[in-house]
Amino acid sequence: MRHHGGHVFTIRKHVVSLYEVNKTIRLSTETIDIIRFVCDALALKPQLLGRHIVRTYSQHTSVSYKTFYFDQQIDHFGFLENGTFKQRYLLNDKHWHKEGGPILFYTGNEGDITWFCNNTGFMWDVAEELGALLVFAEHRYYGESMPFGEESYSNAKYLNYLTSEQALADFAMLIKALKKNLPRAQNSSVIAIGGSYGGMLAAWLRMKYPSAVVGALAASAPIWQFIVPCGEFYKVVTHDFTISGTNCSSNIRRSWAAVDRVSATGEGLQWLSQEFGLCNPLKTPDEVYSFKAWLQETWVNLAMVDYPYEANFLQPLPAWPVKVVCRNLHFDTGVSDKQLLNGISKAVRVYYNFTGGAVCLNTSQTATGNLGFLGWFYQSCTEMVMPMCTDGVVDMFEPQPWNFQAFSDECFNQFGVRPREDWAEIVYGGRNISDHSNIIFSNGNLDPWMSGGVTKSLSESLVAIMIDGGAHHLDLRYNNEFDPESVLKTRALEVHYFKQWLKQAATTQ
Amino acid sequence: MRHHGGHVFTIRKHVVSLYEVNKTIRLSTETIDIIRFVCDALALKPQLLGRHIVRTYSQHTSVSYKTFYFDQQIDHFGFLENGTFKQRYLLNDKHWHKEGGPILFYTGNEGDITWFCNNTGFMWDVAEELGALLVFAEHRYYGESMPFGEESYSNAKYLNYLTSEQALADFAMLIKALKKNLPRAQNSSVIAIGGSYGGMLAAWLRMKYPSAVVGALAASAPIWQFIVPCGEFYKVVTHDFTISGTNCSSNIRRSWAAVDRVSATGEGLQWLSQEFGLCNPLKTPDEVYSFKAWLQETWVNLAMVDYPYEANFLQPLPAWPVKVVCRNLHFDTGVSDKQLLNGISKAVRVYYNFTGGAVCLNTSQTATGNLGFLGWFYQSCTEMVMPMCTDGVVDMFEPQPWNFQAFSDECFNQFGVRPREDWAEIVYGGRNISDHSNIIFSNGNLDPWMSGGVTKSLSESLVAIMIDGGAHHLDLRYNNEFDPESVLKTRALEVHYFKQWLKQAATTQ
Repeated sequence: MRHHGGHVFTIRKHVVSLYEVNKTIRLSTETIDIIRFVCDALALKPQLLGRHIVRTYSQHTSVSYKTFYFDQQIDHFGFLENGTFKQRYLLNDKHWHKEGGPILFYTGNEGDITWFCNNTGFMWDVAEELGALLVFAEHRYYGESMPFGEESYSNAKYLNYLTSEQALADFAMLIKALKKNLPRAQNSSVIAIGGSYGGMLAAWLRMKYPSAVVGALAASAPIWQFIVPCGEFYKVVTHDFTISGTNCSSNIRRSWAAVDRVSATGEGLQWLSQEFGLCNPLKTPDEVYSFKAWLQETWVNLAMVDYPYEANFLQPLPAWPVKVVCRNLHFDTGVSDKQLLNGISKAVRVYYNFTGGAVCLNTSQTATGNLGFLGWFYQSCTEMVMPMCTDGVVDMFEPQPWNFQAFSDECFNQFGVRPREDWAEIVYGGRNISDHSNIIFSNGNLDPWMSGGVTKSLSESLVAIMIDGGAHHLDLRYNNEFDPESVLKTRALEVHYFKQWLKQAATTQ
Repeated sequence: MRHHGGHVFTIRKHVVSLYEVNKTIRLSTETIDIIRFVCDALALKPQLLGRHIVRTYSQHTSVSYKTFYFDQQIDHFGFLENGTFKQRYLLNDKHWHKEGGPILFYTGNEGDITWFCNNTGFMWDVAEELGALLVFAEHRYYGESMPFGEESYSNAKYLNYLTSEQALADFAMLIKALKKNLPRAQNSSVIAIGGSYGGMLAAWLRMKYPSAVVGALAASAPIWQFIVPCGEFYKVVTHDFTISGTNCSSNIRRSWAAVDRVSATGEGLQWLSQEFGLCNPLKTPDEVYSFKAWLQETWVNLAMVDYPYEANFLQPLPAWPVKVVCRNLHFDTGVSDKQLLNGISKAVRVYYNFTGGAVCLNTSQTATGNLGFLGWFYQSCTEMVMPMCTDGVVDMFEPQPWNFQAFSDECFNQFGVRPREDWAEIVYGGRNISDHSNIIFSNGNLDPWMSGGVTKSLSESLVAIMIDGGAHHLDLRYNNEFDPESVLKTRALEVHYFKQWLKQAATTQ
């Protein structure tokens, strides 16, 4: 039975996924084009927010929820701003029968919470076994949870409350309120669950507010991306392509120079634009630079969503999409530039035109519109500083060093704020987190974000699980007939730990 | 050998100690006098700050330190305000010889850090045995550590960064910087130490930033004062007087009505003013109300500093001052109002005129000027909401219920902010803190603040120590020949735990 075929998300312009923003930022320090793109994005801000996007996907049959809004403090850490806003959260109590039954609490990340709700099948799959209440809490400044309504992104003053610390405090406040106000919840233990940035939040919620949650599942949560060497991320991306087809990553590595050579002439530019079926033909060197950035983002996205079955997370894709992509990139070294780029163009279409509906390819679009581009850009420009770099040797990309100062300057230009390089490490403990407890860190070995993840257990109750053949938080997805054994075992182990935590909590209460 | 006789602090007007502010606030909801006093205080703000106070005390011979200033972020939790200020800290490395030797880090509370430095003899006493570096870090908005210089208290906008969360982040940042920049500190483990609110901060630093400190000594830290029944504090005060002399607390309980009866006539008012040698004779009912508030504060202060030897913490006092006070309050029930009040006036002079130098008694003065009245008032009006009440039955005071709304309104009038009743419990976990580790909660059974303290161990590594015959953080004071056995044992046990934490840290590093 295919669980995911039904999801078809409307793809929007100007939106990128978690990793891409960092990528974008890195590149944009050197290309005015990308800066223009960001400026456009800023100008278009209200249209960019997830809630303005008309969704056309159909929900999984098990997904049904009631929507609520919680009056949340705009500023938890200061008292001058005493206003509140409506934080959205979704609730399903179908399997929540018992007094004191547990609460599975999804710590929403940088996007529309309904999208995460629909893409976290694991919670729906285990609700019955655990007799659990499901709660999906939206992250402030995403989806409908706007501290200053339509104006939330309009100026630096309003954006000032968009931080992970404020989001964690939101979750802690909401949990307290739920436990107080829901009839059966007073003695319910809460388990935090999240993926990607949401997984970081789940882990941090347990670390900073252990009184709120008895444990956390942090799936594909790169909590160490702030401190790992900047090249690690792209090494994993490259590895995925290396193992997915003969010569695959080396041909991608060679493609950058081929693009440069071909695009050096007017005829070449025209050929390239036609070959890739670009909606907007390439004309200037800046546009060629953006084109290469778009290719790079495409490879990264593919690595992230290299799922073992047809799925639609960032885009509708075939099973094992990186393998499908690599079928077009088998060439030996003797291949001509145009032959090579013809292969690249076919490869790219696996990502952008799996459904066959694309009239042309748009280089300013790479993924679902359910993720909040601008908000995450701001978060990267403040505390979520994840250094990224490539060298073209251990990875398949063009060399690009990490330049904090340039990044900081760009943030200042965009938002009037500067990132604080060391803050995330200090506030969330860096590698020194072994005093915490009851956190599962799951990572897939295909997922580029595992480069910043906790991949070895730190103690008996800080458990790392590696999912062989797993891409970005595969374990959080619905069970699927094509799931590898590794992820089935992972999910079972996760439920095992949940039960252990709940038992612990019941005996200490 | 008397360790403390040398300390003589200059006493200032308009300043009250930790508990008194709450007391003041509670009372001031009903007396315009107190509000006037606060308004005066606000008007006088720059003069009120500890750093403007000329100190005349001599330091203990072991106390010597270098003073440093650390560039600290004004706002750790937002990025729009990107300014820094100079946070003062004191450092002594006399006994710090070994590479990786530990750092004892005093988490400064609501006052001038040099005063805490001089009143935390325990750290100076154990430095040699532990080979420890001593650091005393000043709390923002107190002493010299002013985020906006002289203007720090001038408006609500500048005061907005005065929170415990910001202070904890300051400590974590400073610790990170010390470990990075001090030659021998890279592998040094840090232990947080604090008393009273500083003890709360020490515990919370370990809870929120366990990567920064391997453990914490939270001496007389009422981390549960937010959630215990409002009458507990004054019950302990009363108990101290009950056990310190026959009829002592019952005579104080009867004194309030005696004051009311005597002050009902002009002659009585005059008699009362003369009997107490008041600098400003009583004239109005409001002034009588303030007079009673001043008496109440005096009894509370006495309970706090009921040390077994002559000492000068809030005031210069004899050994066991509550016993000395109670010698004047032995009366049987047949005593007349004026006889009773004559005893009260003698009792009060034990506190205000032990040195014999007081020309008259000033009812707007109760303790050392080294504590920052205004800052603590603001903190009480935001997150440090500690409900207090009396009923005149289980305690010796006039009945006074806790009225959150009135308190909130007063805060709004004073500072333009409203307290958040539940926030401290949510952010610091309330009673549900057993997931944390390596914290010693020490309390003296004579200390009113033990009513909000952790007085029973919560786990093997969350240890409560009760000090029989101990007043407010007696264990943090220098060893003294008159110390009861209980406090000597407590200090030894504390050092024992320190060594255990350091050993743990050394093996996990």
